[in-house]
Amino acid sequence: MSNIELDKLLQGNRRALAKAITLVESKLDRHREQAQDILEQLLPHSGNSVRIGITGVPGVGKSTFIEAFGLYLIAQGKRVAVLAVDPSSPVAGGSILGDKTRMEELSRQENAFIRPSPSEGALGGVAQKTRETMLLCEAAGYDVILVETVGVGQSEYQVAGMVDFFMVLMLPGGGDELQGIKKGIVELADALVINKADGESEVLAGKTRQHYNNAMNLLRHTSFWTPRVMTCSALQNNNIDSVWGMIVDYYFQALENDAFATKRARQNRQWMHQLVDEMLHIGLARHPRVREILPALERDVAEGRATAYGAARRIMDAFQG
Amino acid sequence: MSNIELDKLLQGNRRALAKAITLVESKLDRHREQAQDILEQLLPHSGNSVRIGITGVPGVGKSTFIEAFGLYLIAQGKRVAVLAVDPSSPVAGGSILGDKTRMEELSRQENAFIRPSPSEGALGGVAQKTRETMLLCEAAGYDVILVETVGVGQSEYQVAGMVDFFMVLMLPGGGDELQGIKKGIVELADALVINKADGESEVLAGKTRQHYNNAMNLLRHTSFWTPRVMTCSALQNNNIDSVWGMIVDYYFQALENDAFATKRARQNRQWMHQLVDEMLHIGLARHPRVREILPALERDVAEGRATAYGAARRIMDAFQG
Repeated sequence: MSNIELDKLLQGNRRALAKAITLVESKLDRHREQAQDILEQLLPHSGNSVRIGITGVPGVGKSTFIEAFGLYLIAQGKRVAVLAVDPSSPVAGGSILGDKTRMEELSRQENAFIRPSPSEGALGGVAQKTRETMLLCEAAGYDVILVETVGVGQSEYQVAGMVDFFMVLMLPGGGDELQGIKKGIVELADALVINKADGESEVLAGKTRQHYNNAMNLLRHTSFWTPRVMTCSALQNNNIDSVWGMIVDYYFQALENDAFATKRARQNRQWMHQLVDEMLHIGLARHPRVREILPALERDVAEGRATAYGAARRIMDAFQG
Repeated sequence: MSNIELDKLLQGNRRALAKAITLVESKLDRHREQAQDILEQLLPHSGNSVRIGITGVPGVGKSTFIEAFGLYLIAQGKRVAVLAVDPSSPVAGGSILGDKTRMEELSRQENAFIRPSPSEGALGGVAQKTRETMLLCEAAGYDVILVETVGVGQSEYQVAGMVDFFMVLMLPGGGDELQGIKKGIVELADALVINKADGESEVLAGKTRQHYNNAMNLLRHTSFWTPRVMTCSALQNNNIDSVWGMIVDYYFQALENDAFATKRARQNRQWMHQLVDEMLHIGLARHPRVREILPALERDVAEGRATAYGAARRIMDAFQG
C-alpha cells in the first residue's frame, strides 16, 4: 500500500481499510511482510478504542444484540467496527450466507464497519488476524470495536485476551450446562448479559439474573472489577443503554485503578510470547533433520522402546545442532 | 547405580527402588543423566501395572479411601504403590508432617510402597518425576500404581494424562461448585466415586449419585467407556471392592476395544512433545542473545511501540541466528 493509501486509511477511508485487512488476512509471505510494514506504521495511531468482546451460544440473539448495541453507539456519535472470530459466528454467517437480514440496519450505517471472520489463518490463526484487524480499525478512527465469537470453542479465551471488556450473552433460564455454555467461559466474563428479557421471559430473566448474581459472588475476583449481571432485550431495545453505561463505568474504574494500561500491556506481552511459541513450533515442524527423525522417535516412545525424555532430548539436539 | 542394584530393583528391593527415585527427583544434571540411563534400561520391564489416578478436594477422605483401597488390593495379592503429585496431598502431607495416622496400616504393609510428592522439579515439573517414578515402581513389580492429587490445581490434567483410569472422589451433597471441585475436572473422570456414603449421609450420597449420573449422561463421550458414578464408604469399607470391580471392567473393555495400548501410546507421545516444548522454552529463556534483547522488546510491545509479530520475529531471529 502506498503512503497515500495509508493516509486515506488514517482518514477513515473504508476501501483503504478493507485493502489493509486483506493484506493482514493473506497467507502469502509477501503480503504478510507488507502487512507488518503497515502495522508498524499505523501502530502509533492505534489503541484509541474501547475493545469489547461479545460471546454467546447460537440462539442467544447475538446478531440482534450487536445490531441494537451498535446502532445505539452510533446514535451516541461513535464509530463502530464489528469483527468476528469464528466462521460460524453470526457476523461471518451473515456474510458467507449472504443473509442480508442479519445486522441489516447496522451494516447500512456510514459509521459502522462490519468484517466477517477470516478463513483459517497460518501463524496465530484467526485470532492473530483479528487482533491485527482491530489495530487497523483503530487507526481508521473507530471508537468502539466489538469482537464477536460464538462461545462454544477455544476462541473465547483468545478474544478475552484481546479486549478490554468481555461479556457473555445468556438466555433466560437454565444453568451453564443447560445453556450450552462451555465451562470456564463465565469465569472470563466482566459481565453476563441476559438477553431476551421481554414478554413472557421477563420474569424468568430476572430469576436467572438473581441466580448468576449469587454464583458470581462465589467466584473470587482478583481484579478491581466485580463482574455484573444484567438483563436486556435487544429486540425491544430495552436496557441497551445500561450495557453501555456499565462499560463506561468499567472504563472509569479501570483508569482510576491504573488497570487499563496494565491490562493492555499484559495482553500485548502475552500475544508476543504466544507468537514466539507458535514460531518455535512451526520452526520445529519444518526443520529437515527433526522431520527425518521424528516418526521413528514417536513410534519408539509410543511403544515403550524409548523414554519420553530421551526422545525429547534427541529432537532438541537435532533442532539446535 | 550399579547393575547389581538395578537387579535388586527388578527383584522388588525397596531400598534400590528408593535410591533410583532419589536420582529421578534430583535437580543435579549429573543425577538427571544417571536417572535417564536407569530409566532406559528399566523401560522394557515397565508398563505392567494398572495406573489409577485419584483426585478429590481436601476433606473428601482421600487418604482413608486410598488406605482402604490399597489394603483391599493387597488382600487380593497385589503389590501397590502410592505416589503423590502435589505437596499438599495427603500422601505428601502425611510424610512432611510426619502424620503417621494417615495410611498408617497401608504404610506398614510389605506389599505397599508409599512415596510423597517430590518438591518442585526442574524440567517437566513434579508430574515428570511422578511419571518416571511410576516406571521405576513398575519395574520393581508393583501391579497397581495409585497416583494421587488434591484436585484444586492444574495437576489433575497432568495426572489424567499419565494414568489408565482417572477417578474423582466426591462428597455426598452439593454440585461441583459447592464441592469446591475445579471446573473441567469432572469431564476428565472415568468414574465419580461418592465417598462417605455411610450413616446419616447414605441417603444424600444416593441422591448425589443420581444427580451426577444424570449430569454424566449429558456429557458427550468419545471413548468406548461411559463414566460411572458410584458410592462407597472408605471408613466402613463398603463398596471398595466394587470400585476395583469397575476398574477391572474398564480394563477388559479397553483391551477388547484395543483402547488400552492406544491410550498409553498417545500419552507417551504427548509426554514427549510436552518435554520438547519445555526444553524449547528453557532453551529460549537461557539463550544469551534472547535474554539481552527481550526486556526492551517486551517493553516496546507492552507500550505499543512495536507490534507483537515484529517483536516475536526478532526474538526468533536471535534464537536461531
